[in-house]
Amino acid sequence: MKNRLYSRLAYKIIGQMRSGAIPIGERIPSIRQMSKQEKVSISTVMAAYNLLEDQGWVEVRPKSGYYVRRQTREPLAVPNASEVQSPPVIATTSQLVMAVQRDVFKRHTISFSRATPALDFPIIRHVQQAYTRLSRTRKHLGFGYSSAEGHFALRQQIARHAVYAGVSVSPDSVVTTVGTLNAIGICVRVLTKPGDVVAVESPCYYGILQLIEANDLKAIEIPAHPETGMSLEALKLAMEQWPLKAVLTVSSFSNPLGCSIPDDRKKELVNLLEQYQVPLIEDDVYGDLYFGDRRTSAVKAFDTQGLVFLCSSLSKTIDPQLRVGWILAGRHYEEILHRKFVDMSSAPILPELVCADILGQGVYERHLRQAREAYWQRYLRLVDLVSEHFPRVTKISRPQGGIVAWLELPRNVDTTELYHYSRDRDVLIAPGEMFSFNKQYRHCFRINYAPGWTPEREDAIRRLGRWVTERVAPYSD
Amino acid sequence: MKNRLYSRLAYKIIGQMRSGAIPIGERIPSIRQMSKQEKVSISTVMAAYNLLEDQGWVEVRPKSGYYVRRQTREPLAVPNASEVQSPPVIATTSQLVMAVQRDVFKRHTISFSRATPALDFPIIRHVQQAYTRLSRTRKHLGFGYSSAEGHFALRQQIARHAVYAGVSVSPDSVVTTVGTLNAIGICVRVLTKPGDVVAVESPCYYGILQLIEANDLKAIEIPAHPETGMSLEALKLAMEQWPLKAVLTVSSFSNPLGCSIPDDRKKELVNLLEQYQVPLIEDDVYGDLYFGDRRTSAVKAFDTQGLVFLCSSLSKTIDPQLRVGWILAGRHYEEILHRKFVDMSSAPILPELVCADILGQGVYERHLRQAREAYWQRYLRLVDLVSEHFPRVTKISRPQGGIVAWLELPRNVDTTELYHYSRDRDVLIAPGEMFSFNKQYRHCFRINYAPGWTPEREDAIRRLGRWVTERVAPYSD
Repeated sequence: MKNRLYSRLAYKIIGQMRSGAIPIGERIPSIRQMSKQEKVSISTVMAAYNLLEDQGWVEVRPKSGYYVRRQTREPLAVPNASEVQSPPVIATTSQLVMAVQRDVFKRHTISFSRATPALDFPIIRHVQQAYTRLSRTRKHLGFGYSSAEGHFALRQQIARHAVYAGVSVSPDSVVTTVGTLNAIGICVRVLTKPGDVVAVESPCYYGILQLIEANDLKAIEIPAHPETGMSLEALKLAMEQWPLKAVLTVSSFSNPLGCSIPDDRKKELVNLLEQYQVPLIEDDVYGDLYFGDRRTSAVKAFDTQGLVFLCSSLSKTIDPQLRVGWILAGRHYEEILHRKFVDMSSAPILPELVCADILGQGVYERHLRQAREAYWQRYLRLVDLVSEHFPRVTKISRPQGGIVAWLELPRNVDTTELYHYSRDRDVLIAPGEMFSFNKQYRHCFRINYAPGWTPEREDAIRRLGRWVTERVAPYSD
Repeated sequence: MKNRLYSRLAYKIIGQMRSGAIPIGERIPSIRQMSKQEKVSISTVMAAYNLLEDQGWVEVRPKSGYYVRRQTREPLAVPNASEVQSPPVIATTSQLVMAVQRDVFKRHTISFSRATPALDFPIIRHVQQAYTRLSRTRKHLGFGYSSAEGHFALRQQIARHAVYAGVSVSPDSVVTTVGTLNAIGICVRVLTKPGDVVAVESPCYYGILQLIEANDLKAIEIPAHPETGMSLEALKLAMEQWPLKAVLTVSSFSNPLGCSIPDDRKKELVNLLEQYQVPLIEDDVYGDLYFGDRRTSAVKAFDTQGLVFLCSSLSKTIDPQLRVGWILAGRHYEEILHRKFVDMSSAPILPELVCADILGQGVYERHLRQAREAYWQRYLRLVDLVSEHFPRVTKISRPQGGIVAWLELPRNVDTTELYHYSRDRDVLIAPGEMFSFNKQYRHCFRINYAPGWTPEREDAIRRLGRWVTERVAPYSD
């Protein structure tokens, strides 16, 4: 618990330094002042300051205090908000996406490419034990088809857990799925027909783009700000111009930017949806992995008309192998349920029993605390490594949660080329091309920082940085 | 093994009696003759004849032999082949279908409605043990996303097992799914676009009809003969008249008729597909549950151009809860794989490991022998019960395998009414209305005969028969 406190404090201070609230060269409050101000113990502040010092954010001047460091390693700039783009676009990136999926299964690769959580947390052992126990003791076979809506015990836990995101729903409005992408797909199939236009954020999680392509939809890519997410102004414009059938967004700690729509803008977004009567498919799969003080609300928390379809799973908080996701269905509950039945009759019951069991124990909350802490630390280490090994013009996103960061390079650097180059050398990244139907992100790429840093992974960043540096050099300072 | 032999023999003789090859009143070969003719032991023939006598098919005349019995319980007539119907039809039966799914979960119901296998075979215990063992010993968690195509060990077993159906494929052309309906749905989504016309057999498995409805397709219902399946003549006509994008059929031991396209006509069907270049989505989920001597071929066995997409699962042979199905993809393998990835990233790995384990053991083949034997016996008992309690005008299908039978009543009997009536009295049937977009089967219904007969289930048939008798009486003999 203490561990968590000092790191929270350090996170807060870094935020202030980054935003400029505490400028470079300025003294930060003394340990005693900070202890009083933040109502935490002296030892907590000391631990936080040590961390800041270790990571090069502050320096100690003897008999004087802690000062924000002149940035020999200057915090990297935030990537640009994407540009507004007009007509809906159909295009194809499926071959590249499938290639990136397959790469991961080659041996001896160092993968930054897929958004997989760290898989060495103790929770995995708990889940494994629940599997063994429930497979032996609970009836999960020999009763035929189960109900399309999913096991009640799980739906109950999902409804209970949704309260943390400000969402109050009955277990009877929950439909379970085989992961988040499956949940989003069911919603897309219920809400749209081929040729329809939908709005997505840009850059956009490639799974959503693949769904759009496979369902023959047209996409309007709405610029997303790297810290505040989808531009509501651009979205409003799109709603005025196009008969949008749905909006899709990873609302909290987006993939790939890590940005989060602030709660007041989430409310504003709902107003917009209501005004134009456009449903929102909200991917909230990273919502529990916040770095700040508290969980941000889901957009669904502000939904009074059933226009928001919240999709999530345990794939990012525990393990994608669980394949347990869900939809908090809005006004089309019956259609969502029918669609799930039509797609697969029902989902496997044992994983649902296991997840209900895990969500019902304190172990999941404890795990989340540990995971959030670890991911934040690992993100900071990534920033260090990028600062050290990439040219200074490199920009890196400042995720407020989640497990991925977005890097932006000068426009002459082609990350699809980098992908092929590093792939041949057993290092995998997710090139920017996957995150848009336009070619606008070919100078960006996504990195998963969830796994613990090992010398091999650190070396891989160094190698990526060297390749980039060679290409940037002529234009760089 | 001996058990199997005598029952096979009895099955064969009943077939001859039904087809008229051995007419009523005729003497059947003596035990000695039959033993010689069929190359089986005297005791096997005696056991077979005892079974025939017990079930009222033959009677013993002392010092003379076994005679085909004058039918105090006359074999029921076979339902009519469905009528040809012209234009493609869009319609909706989804509310009824969803209601029938939900009924099953009410307590104290006696269900004949869903096509669930018997769930008290020892194989369930084996599967349960495999789950417990593999959940403890094999790595099924903590490695992130698995590959979209499914676990190699399972794909290997599926390819190995396909040989029994005459199909020779590489594990690399197999894509695993979450059950058969999921497999069919993926194929439908790859092969069609909304508004497209597909051909289905009539009556048709309602899951396929629901898929067609959900995907905004138009269906041409091709009449199916209750013993030889889909009329190839009518299908040819449909192919000439409409730009069919796919044909869908449960090719062996169809649901609901239990009919099977004979192997030579399966070959003919492939010729037709090749001539018009129309892909076939073949649901082979009942293929292993044959009552005859040997497994019939899959249509895919005759496919040389990759036009046949074979979909199957272990839902009917073991337990729907496994949710493990597969597609033997034809020429669109890459698209099928991409579509599965888009729909769910990957399927849960533990059920796949368990199924690979079970398929790799002799236990699955042993189980199939036991299940086939039991289902045939249970079907015969159903015929007895229907003969006894339903009016004589009732027709019942003669499945050559599988777990469902189709009953046809006089046209004035409304089985949707019967469904509602019996449902209020805790007996569930699948009304004919579910099996067509036309109203042509409202005097038919489907019964699942897989579970063992109990006094309660037998009584339920009696009660259904009484209701029907009351309605038929004025018109009956």
